[in-house]
Amino acid sequence: MESLTVSSAALTRLLDGRWAAVRRDVREHLAAQAAHGALDTARLDVAAHRERIARQIEALAETGGPRLGFPTEYGGGGDIGAAVVSFEMLGFGDLSLMVKAGVQWGLFGGGIHLLGTRRHHEQYLPDIMSGALPGCFAMTEVGHGSDVQRLRTTATYDPRTAEFVVHTPDSAAAKTYIGNAARDGRLAVVFAQLVTGGRSRGVHALLVPIRDENGTVLPGVTVEDSGVKAGLNGVDNGRLTFDQVRVPRAALLNRYGDVTEDGTYTSPIDSDNKRFFTMLGTLVRGRISVAGSAGSATKRALAIAVNYADRRKQFEGPDGDEITVLDYLTHQRRLLPALATTYALHFAQEDLVAELHDLQGGTPEDVANADEIRQRELESRAAGLKAVATWHATHTIQAAREACGGAGYMAENVLPSLKADTDVFTTFEGDNTVLLQLVAKGLLTNYRLQFQDLSPLATARFVAEQFVGAVIERTAARKVVERIVDASPVRDDDDAVFDRAWQCKLFTDRESHVLDGLARRLRAAGRDNAFEVFNAAGDHVLRAARVHVDRLVLDSFVAAVERCDDDEARALLNKVCDLHVLSTIEADRGWFLEHGRLTSGRAKAVVAGVNRLCGELRPHARTLVDAFAVPEALVQVPMLDWT
Amino acid sequence: MESLTVSSAALTRLLDGRWAAVRRDVREHLAAQAAHGALDTARLDVAAHRERIARQIEALAETGGPRLGFPTEYGGGGDIGAAVVSFEMLGFGDLSLMVKAGVQWGLFGGGIHLLGTRRHHEQYLPDIMSGALPGCFAMTEVGHGSDVQRLRTTATYDPRTAEFVVHTPDSAAAKTYIGNAARDGRLAVVFAQLVTGGRSRGVHALLVPIRDENGTVLPGVTVEDSGVKAGLNGVDNGRLTFDQVRVPRAALLNRYGDVTEDGTYTSPIDSDNKRFFTMLGTLVRGRISVAGSAGSATKRALAIAVNYADRRKQFEGPDGDEITVLDYLTHQRRLLPALATTYALHFAQEDLVAELHDLQGGTPEDVANADEIRQRELESRAAGLKAVATWHATHTIQAAREACGGAGYMAENVLPSLKADTDVFTTFEGDNTVLLQLVAKGLLTNYRLQFQDLSPLATARFVAEQFVGAVIERTAARKVVERIVDASPVRDDDDAVFDRAWQCKLFTDRESHVLDGLARRLRAAGRDNAFEVFNAAGDHVLRAARVHVDRLVLDSFVAAVERCDDDEARALLNKVCDLHVLSTIEADRGWFLEHGRLTSGRAKAVVAGVNRLCGELRPHARTLVDAFAVPEALVQVPMLDWT
Repeated sequence: MESLTVSSAALTRLLDGRWAAVRRDVREHLAAQAAHGALDTARLDVAAHRERIARQIEALAETGGPRLGFPTEYGGGGDIGAAVVSFEMLGFGDLSLMVKAGVQWGLFGGGIHLLGTRRHHEQYLPDIMSGALPGCFAMTEVGHGSDVQRLRTTATYDPRTAEFVVHTPDSAAAKTYIGNAARDGRLAVVFAQLVTGGRSRGVHALLVPIRDENGTVLPGVTVEDSGVKAGLNGVDNGRLTFDQVRVPRAALLNRYGDVTEDGTYTSPIDSDNKRFFTMLGTLVRGRISVAGSAGSATKRALAIAVNYADRRKQFEGPDGDEITVLDYLTHQRRLLPALATTYALHFAQEDLVAELHDLQGGTPEDVANADEIRQRELESRAAGLKAVATWHATHTIQAAREACGGAGYMAENVLPSLKADTDVFTTFEGDNTVLLQLVAKGLLTNYRLQFQDLSPLATARFVAEQFVGAVIERTAARKVVERIVDASPVRDDDDAVFDRAWQCKLFTDRESHVLDGLARRLRAAGRDNAFEVFNAAGDHVLRAARVHVDRLVLDSFVAAVERCDDDEARALLNKVCDLHVLSTIEADRGWFLEHGRLTSGRAKAVVAGVNRLCGELRPHARTLVDAFAVPEALVQVPMLDWT
Repeated sequence: MESLTVSSAALTRLLDGRWAAVRRDVREHLAAQAAHGALDTARLDVAAHRERIARQIEALAETGGPRLGFPTEYGGGGDIGAAVVSFEMLGFGDLSLMVKAGVQWGLFGGGIHLLGTRRHHEQYLPDIMSGALPGCFAMTEVGHGSDVQRLRTTATYDPRTAEFVVHTPDSAAAKTYIGNAARDGRLAVVFAQLVTGGRSRGVHALLVPIRDENGTVLPGVTVEDSGVKAGLNGVDNGRLTFDQVRVPRAALLNRYGDVTEDGTYTSPIDSDNKRFFTMLGTLVRGRISVAGSAGSATKRALAIAVNYADRRKQFEGPDGDEITVLDYLTHQRRLLPALATTYALHFAQEDLVAELHDLQGGTPEDVANADEIRQRELESRAAGLKAVATWHATHTIQAAREACGGAGYMAENVLPSLKADTDVFTTFEGDNTVLLQLVAKGLLTNYRLQFQDLSPLATARFVAEQFVGAVIERTAARKVVERIVDASPVRDDDDAVFDRAWQCKLFTDRESHVLDGLARRLRAAGRDNAFEVFNAAGDHVLRAARVHVDRLVLDSFVAAVERCDDDEARALLNKVCDLHVLSTIEADRGWFLEHGRLTSGRAKAVVAGVNRLCGELRPHARTLVDAFAVPEALVQVPMLDWT
């Protein structure tokens, strides 16, 4: 292994994949911004940080990157995959910029694009793309975050004036943590219970102006500043309340539901539940973008920590010289398994973006017409990968901080802001625990229940009646894995832990077993105890989702290694994949042993394998982080000059 | 269990223990400060935060609390246990205050007290106690943190003028991250290589003035501000360099080494190594204080998160009402095992403080004369508990933040500052990974090697020649455990997982087995490969230390439950202890299964046991956090009013 002379460029080519040109453009933009200090925000107070990010939003708009996801007829790029990759790459820079851009172009612009119709597109998309019209996405309320269906803001249609009256009934219904609300937003996509003819039609989105062109808050709207946050202080989050605010009938984003002038409600989707989940489904891009940018932040943290560990020396070694800290096994174990998993998640993310792009194409019509089961699978994969990738970011950036000791605690060395900024990723765009429950429900119902009632009761009853066993969907990556497994003999020696077929079978088997076991438990549920049964299996539910995501991620990594056309890079990636797999098994070997999937001897071989791979990959650690091609100016922090 | 009506007061009595009066005093002081908003620092910029904390240091000095650890003859309290508990309790408030107080009275004042002699005490202690003389503890350098023995600042004796010349040879030898240095400190305890007669005598501490009474930096001293940090921004950390700064001969803190006027070096300790480690041993109080205040911050975070989870509702339940989030098993699993372990660590901390107090008494002479093996054991326990308690704080406060969703990300809800401030606890006062290696070395050498060479080579050779097997020291808590184990029959049913004797035996057996196995591996080391062998066993070394600490912590918890004289409180604590034990076993059940210590069936019983205990303790969660008696004003954050 040490004799391998892998160039990071070969790895970068594979990592950059289908949207390499977009990745290059964003790298160049961030490098140019960094060159004149625009990304150096550690010393700014909240007001100055917000101002800085607002200017960067303008600079970003000028690059044209934010147009990528919008329709070509309004000046957009019509390339949803490119748009998501572009957000992902912003994760290398100040994450406040990524989040504010995500609010403006992903949530606000994307909401109008996907939930609105031509009249909204013509009127707003050009100014949204250019940044001339800053906006908000007002969904979360004080009292309801994850449970979107029970939001309590109302939009009541008044046929006398052909207007909707948007109203916040009490403080628990205030829209909270809304990005762009405290300072810059002028128009908001507001989610509210639509009421017409005295009847509620469920949650819909409307456009509500909140500030005039001078930035003055409009009558009936109250804005409170969310104040200082743990991180992302360049984003102006705020709380919005509406006191009988009137907007015209055309303000309703009416792709999935409309109200005629006389107040008659119409919708192309009959079921209230199906309509609601179809509308929510448009949020999938946001979740995918968060997973991607969490990955970028993780890569930057690892690039910094690995570079530091490869320079920093501490304690005398056997030859009298001081030892480079990355030569310690204990230090390798802090960083290298996390680095391997970062590779794995990168390829899973790339596959997910490709699936989004291929399934949804560029137009709202494509989204509305996408194959339903495939759309539900996509949402499930996005939810699962978002949860796993953002937790991985939290853990890895923490490990990177600790691996840099006191230096890692200094703001100038960037790890503190990476940590503080990404922390909320596990919460926003869906709380991770809730998202994993959605994944598990999708698996249990084979994606057939998504448009119906999602309550524990319904899930448990559905499973009791219809679950026939875990089904593994046949993605492109899965086919590669199946070919490898089929071509491989059964192994029973301890070196089998390095055998890809054995590894893949172990992950697949775990997924099926956990899911089948969960279904058996849920079958015990009846009408009276469905919640209790489902709740008592809560840890089992989360585990089913996690091991499913683990298997999907491994499939993607294996397929990526197979398509690598550089022999030395592929050899190195095979080791990285081994480390990802074995460290994942090591962490969960309690389960494998408990269920007779690993013998004691082989479990010990897994632990020994992690140690061996750490040593083998250590000489290549710099190459592996260099391959992420984080712009040099974003890695070169002061502590790297001290050593 | 639900029928238990435990009062939190009974639990508080047990938790408050031997230094209950000190705990009460600090609670009252913090509550009074909070009442007029002094602790509300989230909106302050760095300069204002530093100013606020400087004022709070003055207010704290007026309480007399900081005097507790100093000699009565100078106006101190002569009660080291009380002093450490007092620092621990400051962890309920703004942690910048705790850290700045720790620098002033623990490190700076404590250093002069323990390393200096009467002349230093008379001259400085009164002004240090009153806060009139703010000071620094300048040990860490840019190039050397953990490896204190290789610090490179020099203090060269010049017999012509009877002065020491303190000098920073290059930027890697600059003193860095020094608390109180950037703004307030006037005098510094500086660690430097003492050189006299052309010969180096190893690291010693000297007093070097850095500012005059007006706060002007003195000639030859350069101070750079460390700038913004991830947290603790109320503490003015800075970098100090010295350019041939002359101090009188009497500036040497000369308890363990002195230089006569003609430059002759004298010391009561012949061995350079023994002298060095004796001096370092005086730092043990700092480590114990950090472990304790990490515990206080953890308690406050749990009190906030449990109160929120017991109010916050989300998603409809079977009866149509919304479900309180703490009723979800998944939410219980985020908070309640961590709460149980927080109890465990509290009692271990209490035992550690008592051992410090009983062993070291109040005077520097007592410290110097303490039984050597017992002193080494104390240092080892302090190192181990500091590592485990600070990592527990990092994980638990993170879990608390996530459990409060977006609200947990808002500065006004305090969790962000608890997270950011405690983050560096895993690094300062000894990097946790290095500390655990020290613990393992102590175990392997039965504390006999501490004064000698601590290199891997020496450790490995010592083990190869002399290790005869793991020895479990007989603390007071251990005797309680042994009595329980001896009185209990052997169990082999799955309910044995709730049997205290079975639990204790499992922990003790794991400790012995891991340590014996490590010794076997190290015996393979010879002169040529000692580093490689030790390094290859790096993960095994850390594990040996961790399972040792786990066993110590359990001993303390078991003994505390036994001495609880309130029947209902004891019954509840028994459940808490069960949850601590079973969640610890659950997390490590891979090892137990791999080594034949758990059958598959019993491993599953452990997982089921954690779930069952979460449910049983859920109705008592508020009582358990109320018992920490965190002042109400420090728990009552805005988000608790929203729900």
